[in-house]
Amino acid sequence: MQQEDGNMQSTNQCDIGFIGLGVMGSNLTMNLADHGYRVACFDLDQQKVDAILQKDASERLPDTAPRVEGCSSYTELLSKLKAPHLVILSVPAGDPVDHVCNHLIDAGIQADDIVVDTGNSLWTDSVTREAQYKGKFIFFSTAVSGGEIGARFGPSLMPSGNPYAWTRLEPVLTAIAAKVDPDTGKPIESLTPGKPVTEGEPCATYIGPVGAGHYVKMVHNGIEYADMQLICETYHMMRQGLHMSPAEIATVFRQWNDGKLNSYLMEISAEVLEQLDPETQVPLVDVILDRAGQKGTGLWTAVSALEVGSPAQTITSAVFARSLSSLKDERMAASQVLPGPEATVYSDEQKQSIINKLEQALYCSKICAYAQGFQLMDIAAKEHGWSLDFAEIAKIWRAGCIIRAVFLQSIAHAYEKDENLANLLLDPYFAEQIAKFQADWRGSISEATLAGVPCPAMMSALSYYDSYRTAVLPANLLQGQRDYFGAHTYQRVDKPAGKKYHLNWSDPARPQVAIKK
Amino acid sequence: MQQEDGNMQSTNQCDIGFIGLGVMGSNLTMNLADHGYRVACFDLDQQKVDAILQKDASERLPDTAPRVEGCSSYTELLSKLKAPHLVILSVPAGDPVDHVCNHLIDAGIQADDIVVDTGNSLWTDSVTREAQYKGKFIFFSTAVSGGEIGARFGPSLMPSGNPYAWTRLEPVLTAIAAKVDPDTGKPIESLTPGKPVTEGEPCATYIGPVGAGHYVKMVHNGIEYADMQLICETYHMMRQGLHMSPAEIATVFRQWNDGKLNSYLMEISAEVLEQLDPETQVPLVDVILDRAGQKGTGLWTAVSALEVGSPAQTITSAVFARSLSSLKDERMAASQVLPGPEATVYSDEQKQSIINKLEQALYCSKICAYAQGFQLMDIAAKEHGWSLDFAEIAKIWRAGCIIRAVFLQSIAHAYEKDENLANLLLDPYFAEQIAKFQADWRGSISEATLAGVPCPAMMSALSYYDSYRTAVLPANLLQGQRDYFGAHTYQRVDKPAGKKYHLNWSDPARPQVAIKK
Repeated sequence: MQQEDGNMQSTNQCDIGFIGLGVMGSNLTMNLADHGYRVACFDLDQQKVDAILQKDASERLPDTAPRVEGCSSYTELLSKLKAPHLVILSVPAGDPVDHVCNHLIDAGIQADDIVVDTGNSLWTDSVTREAQYKGKFIFFSTAVSGGEIGARFGPSLMPSGNPYAWTRLEPVLTAIAAKVDPDTGKPIESLTPGKPVTEGEPCATYIGPVGAGHYVKMVHNGIEYADMQLICETYHMMRQGLHMSPAEIATVFRQWNDGKLNSYLMEISAEVLEQLDPETQVPLVDVILDRAGQKGTGLWTAVSALEVGSPAQTITSAVFARSLSSLKDERMAASQVLPGPEATVYSDEQKQSIINKLEQALYCSKICAYAQGFQLMDIAAKEHGWSLDFAEIAKIWRAGCIIRAVFLQSIAHAYEKDENLANLLLDPYFAEQIAKFQADWRGSISEATLAGVPCPAMMSALSYYDSYRTAVLPANLLQGQRDYFGAHTYQRVDKPAGKKYHLNWSDPARPQVAIKK
Repeated sequence: MQQEDGNMQSTNQCDIGFIGLGVMGSNLTMNLADHGYRVACFDLDQQKVDAILQKDASERLPDTAPRVEGCSSYTELLSKLKAPHLVILSVPAGDPVDHVCNHLIDAGIQADDIVVDTGNSLWTDSVTREAQYKGKFIFFSTAVSGGEIGARFGPSLMPSGNPYAWTRLEPVLTAIAAKVDPDTGKPIESLTPGKPVTEGEPCATYIGPVGAGHYVKMVHNGIEYADMQLICETYHMMRQGLHMSPAEIATVFRQWNDGKLNSYLMEISAEVLEQLDPETQVPLVDVILDRAGQKGTGLWTAVSALEVGSPAQTITSAVFARSLSSLKDERMAASQVLPGPEATVYSDEQKQSIINKLEQALYCSKICAYAQGFQLMDIAAKEHGWSLDFAEIAKIWRAGCIIRAVFLQSIAHAYEKDENLANLLLDPYFAEQIAKFQADWRGSISEATLAGVPCPAMMSALSYYDSYRTAVLPANLLQGQRDYFGAHTYQRVDKPAGKKYHLNWSDPARPQVAIKK
């Protein structure tokens, strides 16, 4: 309480106002304070205010003065801030954001003040809000990736909106963001409170107009779904196809994690597989129910891909794999009546050969999943009039977020070399990688097909690759079918693009009818 | 004009009012007249009214009196009808439907009159309209499948809404619907004006509450997308993999059409492949540009599947295959730089063996695509509180619509035997069929995988089958990953369903925390 009394006197001294002190909010606040910012905090729950004051004091004292101050109202929060005011929100997405914004208006926020939404908002809501609060204050938003730990010690940040607001926010957001060694592409991490990382490239870049940041974050999550599913399928092939134990598979994953598959997700997958259940001492993975949950961002990505016509089939198959997993009772019943192929018995040598192939299969599939994510952002950006810098987006995903991996350094290089790259698959490095490893990729999928081990995401990645590199797809037959039964017309390869034709199928001798475009 | 004067005197004598005389509307009107109904017609375009009067007169006279009468206003249309009035609309989906409804209110339509929307409306719009027009008139809707020819000589109809309205509409809609021989499951067709089919089972059944009919029609179209894509992939394997000509493939398709793959789509695919371009005399399919168009219903089905969590991955992959096909320029460029495997040369014997396998592969994949469609309707029905009769739905798709096939007779049998069948794959007949042919299915996909021929829909069908029959999927590892990085919790196989657990991953020695449901 001493401290709070002290706070009461600090009118106009704080750099940032922070509203919403849940796990993410309090960690972001501590992260800001670690970087020297004085933060005035408010939460409807006074206990959360008290808790963060105590936490800040205990981590700062006795070397440094506390940097977080508590407030008991929106008015008090604004009174503590330097003008023009900068307020950051970490409240649940949806109505609560508008609720707080309206309270800030009542409390006297000004037209040149900035309010930053860091929640998991739908990108279209941010677009609406920017327009809605124009003239009252500047509404800005940034997507935050990296969960609790990221928020505390360095998240990946995807800010978008008013460019003037960005000039004011840039020093703040780049300070608290995760950092990367620009040469190796690896994260520079510190998990020590009060000792933040101050060197390296920050994982925060201005994405574009309002909504763009949350859209990019949504696609990040879609890619995350695909990446996780691909790892799970690879695990499954070893588990079901090769009858390996979780510990043996963890060892393989650890080896792969030292190579080109190095990533946070690969690392934690090995840790999950090594983990024994504290209760029963059997591998924890065998105790966990195989029904995958979802929060919706993968689904939003898949829906957006369908709507803008971007073939993100691997991301979508990962979403469906989760739906299918949730039909546990049906699957248990089906496993009793739907036969698969005879189980194959492999020699140790064959087993090792299959494991080696699987590494390449996972790698090639992963390239396709990321290619689909970047393609989706590209097509969506054209639709929405955004100019996205894909090299920068790949760079800010190298640390702080769930899909962080050295792999993203290669993607950044691809877009640095050619900012108009139509598809990641066309980058010479990735093209060469798939050329080199595709026999193993095909071999692995063929093996799984014959052995009856499902690998929907991996198959969809291969068919994406094979479709993309096919000059003439059977969509010509499909257009013929559509014209036959529905007079939907077709274009001709030997006539100007866009000109439409219809055959009189019931009397084909009559000439084709060209239809106005 | 004589005739129109005649019509002016027929107050209260017509059975049905018909509004909207486009291709579908005028054909439905002629179909109604063929079955003896006296129809009063109105269209904003007087020429369309004149045209149908002429058409009706020329087909009816001299044996029969004309049955269609023209109107020049909504008021006149209502005045010509027997009370309570029955009005059918065939106007573009969206605002025009409400526009006409409001005109009918102004013209004095009554609370017990019925207005039937036959357009391609979004199912949720029908739900809104039923409520909106309550007390003014009874809004009812029926989805219509079968295109122009179906509308004229017998469509497949999916009516839903107010049950009282259905009792009045049933004789009308069952009269004009396509007919099926109940024993063989084959359509009984007549394409002779004035000589409609009057025997056989009608392809019209009451689907359920408002919106249900259009939802079922939407899923029909999703299945249609998958069915078409599977045929196209099979064609592509023969064309690209086996270097067969369109005519040779047409011959194979005709053979298959005599067996278990018999369907309208298989038949027209053979016809399309046999067709020469009248202009150049090369196979038309080679002249058609391989960019597939879409009208949106497949996309809606995929989005709905994602939203209700039904793993309709084959339907979705067919939608994405169309999107990918439209990237023609990129594909042309990619085909020059992205290598595939070496082409295999097959002996005639090997070729024939692969063709034989492909028949089974297409058949098994088709079963899975239909299983996904029926599963989607099942899950959606539970979500929306509909009680759908899947045997009846399969039956009304046996004729009149694009996916018509004897195959649907087997689906009807499956649901007749067990109306609570959880999945078509679990029906003993289909389970046995896949068991018998799965080696060929797997062999075909393995062949395509190694040969570099894309088959996204076929692969997604196989992985659907293999996932569905897997008792333990790798979603357990996925839940472990999610709990590790995001504290998303997991359930345990050895504890009551719904109870959630979280491991303290940074200190696993500490016991797992059970989290309130």
